Amino acid sequence: MTTDRIWTAALLIIGDEILSGRTQDANLAYLAKWLGVQGIRLKEVRVIADDMDAIAAAVQALSAGHDYLFTTGGIGPTHDDITVDAIAAALGLNVVVHPQAKAILAEYYGENLTEARLRMARTPEGATLIENPRTKAPGIRIRNIFIMAGVPVITQGMLAALDGQLQGGAPVLSRTVAAWTQESAAAATLLAVEKAHPGVQIGSYPFWREGKTGANFVIRSTDPARLDAVAQALMAALAAAGIAPIDGEL
Amino acid sequence: MTTDRIWTAALLIIGDEILSGRTQDANLAYLAKWLGVQGIRLKEVRVIADDMDAIAAAVQALSAGHDYLFTTGGIGPTHDDITVDAIAAALGLNVVVHPQAKAILAEYYGENLTEARLRMARTPEGATLIENPRTKAPGIRIRNIFIMAGVPVITQGMLAALDGQLQGGAPVLSRTVAAWTQESAAAATLLAVEKAHPGVQIGSYPFWREGKTGANFVIRSTDPARLDAVAQALMAALAAAGIAPIDGEL
Repeated sequence: MTTDRIWTAALLIIGDEILSGRTQDANLAYLAKWLGVQGIRLKEVRVIADDMDAIAAAVQALSAGHDYLFTTGGIGPTHDDITVDAIAAALGLNVVVHPQAKAILAEYYGENLTEARLRMARTPEGATLIENPRTKAPGIRIRNIFIMAGVPVITQGMLAALDGQLQGGAPVLSRTVAAWTQESAAAATLLAVEKAHPGVQIGSYPFWREGKTGANFVIRSTDPARLDAVAQALMAALAAAGIAPIDGEL
Repeated sequence: MTTDRIWTAALLIIGDEILSGRTQDANLAYLAKWLGVQGIRLKEVRVIADDMDAIAAAVQALSAGHDYLFTTGGIGPTHDDITVDAIAAALGLNVVVHPQAKAILAEYYGENLTEARLRMARTPEGATLIENPRTKAPGIRIRNIFIMAGVPVITQGMLAALDGQLQGGAPVLSRTVAAWTQESAAAATLLAVEKAHPGVQIGSYPFWREGKTGANFVIRSTDPARLDAVAQALMAALAAAGIAPIDGEL
C-alpha cells in the first residue's frame, strides 16, 4: 500500500539574484505542478543567498525533513556557483570530477573544455547524473537531493528527464468553484462545507477585476469522486446563502 | 554609526496556493526591491502551507535570525486565514480584537460588519496597525514582525505606508556589465576581478536569446564610486580576454 503514504518534497532556491529582486523565480510554480503529477507534495520552499553556510544548513534541514529535496541555482561554471561544494560539505562528502559528466562535457565542448567548464563536471562523491537536454551540463542526484539548474528552461528539461522516475502517492486533485462576491460574505459557508467533509481542503482566493470583487474557492482532495461531491455541496450551500455559484474558475 | 551595520530581513510567504503552483508569487521581488531602497537586505525567504505549526516554527526561526520579518498571506476573513493565530501562538501572545482595526472596518463595512469580516480586526495582543489604502483591513506589526496581505496590490499599498519608517543601513547598489559570450569563457576573468576588489560581489547570469548566448555580470557594492571602478576594471579585463564588453544590461 503506497497510496496512503504522503510523499513530500522541499525546494531550495539558491541565488542572490532572486533575493535582490533582480530575477523573478519561475521554478517554484513549475516544480510544484510537476511534483503534483508525480504524486508528491511540495511542502516547503526556501530562498537563500550564494553562501556556503546558508546552503549547507538549509540542505541538512530540508533533506532530513522531506522525502525529496530539489535545489535550483549555482551549478554553472563561474566563481559564484558554489552549490555542489556546499551540498557536499553539508553531507560530509568529497567533491570529485564525475567521469560520465566529464565525458558529456568533453563531447559537447571538444577542445574548448576549459577549467571553468570542467567545474560543471564536479559532483559530491557517489552522485548520479540528471540529463540536461538543453545545454548538456548535467544535474546531479545525491541521496534524496536533486541538484538542478537555475535557468528555468534548463530546469524544465531536467525535470522532463526525471518524469515518472520518483516514487509518489496519490496526486492531489483540485476543482474550483467561484462567485462574484466578497469572500467575507462566503466565509461561514466555506467553513461549514469544509467541516462537513473531513480530509477535503477548501482555499479561498479573492480578486479584484475591472472594479468587481470575486473569489475562487479551490477544493483539494486525492479522491476525484469526493471532489465532485464537495463541489456540488459547496455550490448548493452558496446558492442557499444567496451567492450565485459558478462551476469553474473566474 | 549606523552605516556599517547591515540590516537584514526575512520573508515568510504563507499559502497552499503558492506551494501547489496555482498562484505565482509576486511579493518576493517587489519586497526585495522595496527593502533595498530602505537599506535593508532580504536574506532568506520561506514558503510554507496554511498550517499552524509550520507557521509558528518558521516565525520563531526567522524573527530571531533577522532584524525584520515580513509575512504575506492568510490575514483575510475566511477559515483558511490562520496567520494571526499562528503568529500569536509562536510569540506566546493572546489574540485580541484591535479597537482601531475594528473602528476602521466598522467605518468601511457599516452595518455589514459580519463576524467573518471582524476576523480581520484580530491581532496578537500589543500589535500596531499598518495602513491598507486599498481594501482597509489593516496589516499588523508585532515586535519585529510585519504581517501583510497576500494579494500583491494590497501588500504594495501596505509597503508604501511603511516607506521610510524602518531603520536601515547603506543600500546595496548594483551595476551591470554584459557580453555576448558563454559565461564559462568569462569565468576566470570574473573571479580575478572580484578577488582584486574585496567587499564587491560579481554575479554571473547567463541567458539564451534568439539563438545567441549572453551573460549579465552584476556588480554589487554599497559604495557608488567603487561600483564604477569595478565596472571599468571588469570591462578592461573582459576586453583583454577577447570578450567585447557592454556597459549595461543585455
